[in-house]
Amino acid sequence: MQARITVTLKNGVLDPQGQAIEGALGSLGFSGINSVRQGKTFEIELEETDRDKAQKILNDMCEKLLANTVIEDYRVRIMG
Amino acid sequence: MQARITVTLKNGVLDPQGQAIEGALGSLGFSGINSVRQGKTFEIELEETDRDKAQKILNDMCEKLLANTVIEDYRVRIMG
Repeated sequence: MQARITVTLKNGVLDPQGQAIEGALGSLGFSGINSVRQGKTFEIELEETDRDKAQKILNDMCEKLLANTVIEDYRVRIMG
Repeated sequence: MQARITVTLKNGVLDPQGQAIEGALGSLGFSGINSVRQGKTFEIELEETDRDKAQKILNDMCEKLLANTVIEDYRVRIMG
């Protein structure tokens, strides 16, 4: 079972990397950019075939390792 | 106009970071993991309101800065 996890900074948490990218895009001549925020994705393939069980395992992975839940949000999407 | 860009390594390109995460998940007791691959996301807010123009600008940003198209693929999703 294939899944995609997206981890992004919570609203209000400063994102210096996103600001640097915004600056770099400006230097390259792109204008009209209101904001850039960077995050991470994980594409995970599990042996588990039960959707609910896979969802539970993936949430658990996020809580324990993949996301810092103090400053980050995560979304789990199972792609079947 | 809000958009999300996802940049992932092309198939066949070695992903040592993904392998390290796979190892770390194993150490935490997670089993049945076939593969982990890591990527990046960018959440970008543009002033542009025309969907086609925004798509073109975002593709351009990927080609010029956000993705290394030799080893990475990118997907642009406009969320309106």
